[in-house]
Amino acid sequence: MFPSLAFLTPLLSHGISHDLWSSLPSLLATAGGGEGETYAKAFAVALTLTTVLVFVFAQLFGEIAVRIGLPEVLGELVAGFLIGVSGIQILMLGNEGGPVADWAVNLVQLFSGSDVTTIQEIFAGPVKILVNDYAATGVGVLLFKIGLEADLKELIKVGPQAASVAIAGVVLPMVAGFWGLTAVFHLPIIPALFAAAALTATSIGITSRIMQDMGVLKTREGQIILGAAVLDDILGIAILAVAIGVAEHGSVEASSVLGIVFNAALFVASAIALNKIFGPRYINFLAGLKNRYSVLVGAIVFLALMGVIARIIGLEDILGCFAAGIILSDTKATKALEKACDPLVALFTTVFFVTIGAKTDLTVLNLANPESQMGLVIALFLTVVAIVGKVAAGYCLVSKEKVNRLAIGSGMVPRGEVGLVFAGLGAATGALTGAINVAIVLMVIVTTFVAPPMLRWVFARQA
Amino acid sequence: MFPSLAFLTPLLSHGISHDLWSSLPSLLATAGGGEGETYAKAFAVALTLTTVLVFVFAQLFGEIAVRIGLPEVLGELVAGFLIGVSGIQILMLGNEGGPVADWAVNLVQLFSGSDVTTIQEIFAGPVKILVNDYAATGVGVLLFKIGLEADLKELIKVGPQAASVAIAGVVLPMVAGFWGLTAVFHLPIIPALFAAAALTATSIGITSRIMQDMGVLKTREGQIILGAAVLDDILGIAILAVAIGVAEHGSVEASSVLGIVFNAALFVASAIALNKIFGPRYINFLAGLKNRYSVLVGAIVFLALMGVIARIIGLEDILGCFAAGIILSDTKATKALEKACDPLVALFTTVFFVTIGAKTDLTVLNLANPESQMGLVIALFLTVVAIVGKVAAGYCLVSKEKVNRLAIGSGMVPRGEVGLVFAGLGAATGALTGAINVAIVLMVIVTTFVAPPMLRWVFARQA
Repeated sequence: MFPSLAFLTPLLSHGISHDLWSSLPSLLATAGGGEGETYAKAFAVALTLTTVLVFVFAQLFGEIAVRIGLPEVLGELVAGFLIGVSGIQILMLGNEGGPVADWAVNLVQLFSGSDVTTIQEIFAGPVKILVNDYAATGVGVLLFKIGLEADLKELIKVGPQAASVAIAGVVLPMVAGFWGLTAVFHLPIIPALFAAAALTATSIGITSRIMQDMGVLKTREGQIILGAAVLDDILGIAILAVAIGVAEHGSVEASSVLGIVFNAALFVASAIALNKIFGPRYINFLAGLKNRYSVLVGAIVFLALMGVIARIIGLEDILGCFAAGIILSDTKATKALEKACDPLVALFTTVFFVTIGAKTDLTVLNLANPESQMGLVIALFLTVVAIVGKVAAGYCLVSKEKVNRLAIGSGMVPRGEVGLVFAGLGAATGALTGAINVAIVLMVIVTTFVAPPMLRWVFARQA
Repeated sequence: MFPSLAFLTPLLSHGISHDLWSSLPSLLATAGGGEGETYAKAFAVALTLTTVLVFVFAQLFGEIAVRIGLPEVLGELVAGFLIGVSGIQILMLGNEGGPVADWAVNLVQLFSGSDVTTIQEIFAGPVKILVNDYAATGVGVLLFKIGLEADLKELIKVGPQAASVAIAGVVLPMVAGFWGLTAVFHLPIIPALFAAAALTATSIGITSRIMQDMGVLKTREGQIILGAAVLDDILGIAILAVAIGVAEHGSVEASSVLGIVFNAALFVASAIALNKIFGPRYINFLAGLKNRYSVLVGAIVFLALMGVIARIIGLEDILGCFAAGIILSDTKATKALEKACDPLVALFTTVFFVTIGAKTDLTVLNLANPESQMGLVIALFLTVVAIVGKVAAGYCLVSKEKVNRLAIGSGMVPRGEVGLVFAGLGAATGALTGAINVAIVLMVIVTTFVAPPMLRWVFARQA
């Protein structure tokens, strides 16, 4: 987030010339360290430029969103659009997204004296690595904090209800989507399968952030949505395995899918068990250390380990971060830990949501392109199925008490980055042609943007 | 700090095989996304392994340090020794430090299924970039916070006193060192110049952190040491320019050195002016935004900009971070901002001090090597000059009031990373042979380790 240390690399740049901005050749350039210093300066300028724009745009559009009554996260997504691949192209994070804009390269060149190729490599290399890491840190800490704040007893209590919503929310859009794509649009089976799989996703990051922004995360509905989103993530991974297996082999081994489900179940069960037997002991141990921030540091270590364990056994690592939060919830230091996480969440989670926007290519909306036109029609169909399917899933909730089923269904609507991964993976197998890929991306964008106003309206009606 | 996002890269890793740890070939491997997933998993495991060891070792040895009455930062440096180039070699950050240890590579391979070459590249590439960035963030935030906490009026008041200490602390060790190395040890002029230049440094990061650990940063003596360390940093950059100029051309243009001093003076003066006219207005603006963390985010943006501006005009970027703190000090939100920075400081500053330890090559202590033996004798001389020179500088303090001059001199003793940069730069010009390089590194280590007990003893005697 900051320029790297001056003293880790040669220090001098203002050299023989009196002109501040024409610092080449500097003393160090002639001393053989100049190349390193020019590189370090270009790196510092490129990274600062990128992160400063991320934060300034996020603050600006987050502020606008809040002032017009929308969740802040939408402003951050818009900020991402504006500085990412669809906008001024300074935040170019996708694998196929091309280089950053010339103006950014020229600006870095002006202040560093480095050459264009090097600067482009810096943006495509270390800057991208760092921004992606900040984003990963952001969503990891966010899910950790949501785990900390979650009421485990409540989550277990709503578990069956959440499961009913999650399963219905997977089956309904998948079946309707697959049927429509094959029967109405006459798509081949493989691309239809991927598009239908993308319909099943729920973005746990976006959903929980929206609910946090609205202050409804801790309601009964909020906890059901949270539980269902977590289960949906696990189901999504299993479905993805099926889709890829069919795409590649025409079939899939049941054992591999069962293996994923088994690992996931074991992981969730372990987290619940560890909350009682490990969480309080670990916190007590940390609180007994002399460092005032031992609890925070120890929690971060635990979170990182849980994230990587989840990844190793084939789950998403944010599920590991969430589990880490669950395990450390409800201890004597949990409240203080939540507070200590706040600055990290504020900084890094912003980067995460901006990067989601930045990676979303809105140029697919170009209507002069025939593929776009076809994509638009399919997108309309997918979007309707996506929204109706999840809302209907809310009404499939198995519950004796009175809960706001419309709110629960609405909370499951945003596909966010998970839907984009489905599209990306499908494209990687070669199964998805341009039109259907465009359609999936559009569906993801619309569901992500329509969910916050929907949720606001639904929860407001209830109150 | 966390494994990168599962959904930014293909998700699946547990594939057809039932064996959790032999996840190749996975479904995704056959789907063409396997290489990406294996890489992503290896990256996540390598990064987690590295950062977890950094934090666990830092906590452990920080705890031991505090329990035996030493500042925590010493424990963090020791942690760095143990996991860095001198120890188990998992944290290999130096440019010439060779690859990470085989056990680490094998561990990553076990959990990711990636190949040895790729894993080594991951450690030497992205993991190194990230850890260096965390470290840079750490020292940046630390200096920012010290700037926030600094009493600007007091700093200006002690300015002349600090200047007298800084100048004496540069001149005395430099002259004594240069004379001894040339007259007694018959070293050529160039290496003697670099070694003497390394004697002038003061590690602002280590000095301020030690004083913070001891709770004496805000005493009159603490503020004089802080002011002198900042001025010392600026003088150090100018001296380095001279040394490099002489090494390369046999002479140096006065204009370039004057340019650095002029820029530095302008920079410091601007910061002082901006504290009144810009700081409170900026904070008020930020506090008026809807986001609860706007002040923190805005401060971080400002800090990053100040860091890069300092770097662009040829100063150390941590001076920019310090100036940013000074500018935002003494506003209505400063206290809250300090608090919000605490978790960032706790996490990232730890990484910084561990990396200093990790980069320090203690194998230079090998006495079977004749160069080491010669180096040891010179090191002894340099260390004595380094300590006596700075302590004497404390007594050169121009002041009418009664202050603890011994404490001030002792506070200037640690050379830390700044001294290592001098050695590294000298080596880069080809001027420093093995023995003298070894000697400088040893002097840096000893002064860094001897300062905390010295300071503790001196301040305790006063109280």
